[in-house]
Amino acid sequence: MTQQLPATMSQSLFDSRADAIADAARQLAALGWTPATSSNFSMRVDDEHAAITISGRDKGHLGRDDIMLIDLHGHAVGTTARPSAETALHTQVYRRWPEMTAVLHTHSRTQSVASRLYAARGTIQLQGWELQKAISGYTSHDSVLEIPVFPNTQHMPDLVAQVDAWLDAGKPLHAYLIDGHGIYTWGRDIAEARRHLEALEFLLECEMDLRRLSS
Amino acid sequence: MTQQLPATMSQSLFDSRADAIADAARQLAALGWTPATSSNFSMRVDDEHAAITISGRDKGHLGRDDIMLIDLHGHAVGTTARPSAETALHTQVYRRWPEMTAVLHTHSRTQSVASRLYAARGTIQLQGWELQKAISGYTSHDSVLEIPVFPNTQHMPDLVAQVDAWLDAGKPLHAYLIDGHGIYTWGRDIAEARRHLEALEFLLECEMDLRRLSS
Amino acid sequence: MTQQLPATMSQSLFDSRADAIADAARQLAALGWTPATSSNFSMRVDDEHAAITISGRDKGHLGRDDIMLIDLHGHAVGTTARPSAETALHTQVYRRWPEMTAVLHTHSRTQSVASRLYAARGTIQLQGWELQKAISGYTSHDSVLEIPVFPNTQHMPDLVAQVDAWLDAGKPLHAYLIDGHGIYTWGRDIAEARRHLEALEFLLECEMDLRRLSS
Amino acid sequence: MTQQLPATMSQSLFDSRADAIADAARQLAALGWTPATSSNFSMRVDDEHAAITISGRDKGHLGRDDIMLIDLHGHAVGTTARPSAETALHTQVYRRWPEMTAVLHTHSRTQSVASRLYAARGTIQLQGWELQKAISGYTSHDSVLEIPVFPNTQHMPDLVAQVDAWLDAGKPLHAYLIDGHGIYTWGRDIAEARRHLEALEFLLECEMDLRRLSS
Repeated sequence: MTQQLPATMSQSLFDSRADAIADAARQLAALGWTPATSSNFSMRVDDEHAAITISGRDKGHLGRDDIMLIDLHGHAVGTTARPSAETALHTQVYRRWPEMTAVLHTHSRTQSVASRLYAARGTIQLQGWELQKAISGYTSHDSVLEIPVFPNTQHMPDLVAQVDAWLDAGKPLHAYLIDGHGIYTWGRDIAEARRHLEALEFLLECEMDLRRLSS
Repeated sequence: MTQQLPATMSQSLFDSRADAIADAARQLAALGWTPATSSNFSMRVDDEHAAITISGRDKGHLGRDDIMLIDLHGHAVGTTARPSAETALHTQVYRRWPEMTAVLHTHSRTQSVASRLYAARGTIQLQGWELQKAISGYTSHDSVLEIPVFPNTQHMPDLVAQVDAWLDAGKPLHAYLIDGHGIYTWGRDIAEARRHLEALEFLLECEMDLRRLSS
Repeated sequence: MTQQLPATMSQSLFDSRADAIADAARQLAALGWTPATSSNFSMRVDDEHAAITISGRDKGHLGRDDIMLIDLHGHAVGTTARPSAETALHTQVYRRWPEMTAVLHTHSRTQSVASRLYAARGTIQLQGWELQKAISGYTSHDSVLEIPVFPNTQHMPDLVAQVDAWLDAGKPLHAYLIDGHGIYTWGRDIAEARRHLEALEFLLECEMDLRRLSS
Repeated sequence: MTQQLPATMSQSLFDSRADAIADAARQLAALGWTPATSSNFSMRVDDEHAAITISGRDKGHLGRDDIMLIDLHGHAVGTTARPSAETALHTQVYRRWPEMTAVLHTHSRTQSVASRLYAARGTIQLQGWELQKAISGYTSHDSVLEIPVFPNTQHMPDLVAQVDAWLDAGKPLHAYLIDGHGIYTWGRDIAEARRHLEALEFLLECEMDLRRLSS
């Protein structure tokens, strides 16, 4: 499957994004956070485009050919490859925050189980953990870090609308869980997005351990 | 131990199946799913034969010499090697579904414990997990994925009869657990069989975590 | 520290035992079963001698120089190195069973916790697990595999006496736990000893998972 | 960022400390004990100086350039790099115990959760574990090993004062936890500090497993 780039986009720019996505995917797959070809990853390429993983590929063995170009409405650009159904959740981030350049969506066991446990309440509130400081903007363990848990659906526009509603209500958002499904988080660069993902996985694990041991 | 092939079977065909089995076995052993020489793996070679692991070998270090040929009634073909006692459960799959070409049987701690927990009920019903979509034919987390748990026995014909009875009752079957023992699953190719196995391990882990944390 | 061998023992015989011990130790250390320089391993060399790990070495990085010769009463032979205080538990196995040639003692978290949990009862009884068949002499999941848990003491003769008392009462013994401490198991060759150790770790994990989830 | 050394300090001395710190950090990061750029590590260089990790670096990929020199009051020496806010907890150890040469601070999930669980009680008392003998000065599982849990604060002088108060009360101290945060431990050389850290992680895991299973 050949990827044709727009005339205004250099091959080396696209390739650098594709390589960064594939690197991140391999490392997250090695942690077991992308079971059975699940999960997807993207990076902004310019004001109008992003690079994203092609649907259904094994995330532990991605190369440049497994990454495709889309516009910020989720349409394939210069390729017949099919973007993931969940592409709309990536482009939503790029459209709402011009400074965000990387979106990571994984499916770890911890993320899946936490989403089920807290689905009825609708949010997970983290407080008292030093590692909350790994989330940009947080400077103390005393702050409250709130992660919403949205109901799962196979109809993407409903998910997009839930995220929009949260943001339109003026609430801070650094990541969200989808019930029975996984996590979405992002960053101003891929290092920040990965730091957020790593810290959130750790915090969710700690919170569930504490729940298990306190009962 | 020398493996003689039937005149109608090419060496390269058998070797390709043996290599695919050994590769899968090494990777599953590295995950800790084949403790203490347990587990067995097979692939269909043609309409009348399958290749299967020889009993008692360390699944982390298989080579072509650890794979033998059997007919679809479980008899050794062209070798004095002894197939596993559980061979009958592999050939049953190949006889009932002409399109199935790979059967994987592992013994992970998760599979063993889940089988004990749900043995009295006789089935595990999975619902609400996005990863159910990794099982061929499932397109929504809302579907119910039912995995039967059959009582263990050292008498193989009884196990074969339990599986036949389930299928003869017209119930769907993508995998089954044996109480205190492990899981069997299969696929139209070995990639599908591995995706099923990986997804089921993940789903069983999640289900047990949820049970532990919800109580 | 130089190891002088008795005139009747070939260097190559000692070296082969030392290498087998170091290999096993490295692999068990990689699993996290030998935390903080704990654990010890030995192999019979001949009717009167065994090779054993020198006390206090990091089990993940053993070489031939970390293995010493002892007689079957636990005295150093041909070296000024100090054998572990627990050497008496190794030589007891070699004296009581002429056919046993390898003894493994590890300290995994599972072994340590299981020993505390079952110390008051004095034994762990395993039943219903297919993997019991990995213990030599067991042919069915229906059998009962009983592992005694002895109280811990820093006075080795008391531990030796407890094991002797169990055996003198005519009870079968394939392994034992020491409370808060770890496991001892053995085999007719090191492959059997390792299979026993791997199967027992798995069975203890499963039994504790089942206890946690059934409550 | 260039590190200028005092005239009295050889480059090779500083480099050997920096390499030992980077080695330890890489190995502890590989265990998952330093999530999301957290944790810090130091070694004494001479009577007046220590080498310490520069704040915010990924602990899995440290080189000599990620280590800086400080005096024993926590001020940067010969560099414009910023030492971690928690540097004061390292220099406190070097000032109070002239024989201590290495301090390790990590953030594992086990350490974080244990600190939350025992924060209200203020200490964790370990007893009955053979591995307590891995802590220098302990010769029996019967001894009590007490690890204080101090409240977390973003104001370092308060933490330093809590540690001083514990020590000034004449209580033994081999390590301490900070609530929701992690562990500090140390040793006369880096091997001792790592043995302490490894043993404490193991003991905290065992203690929490026992609590979970005994309830």
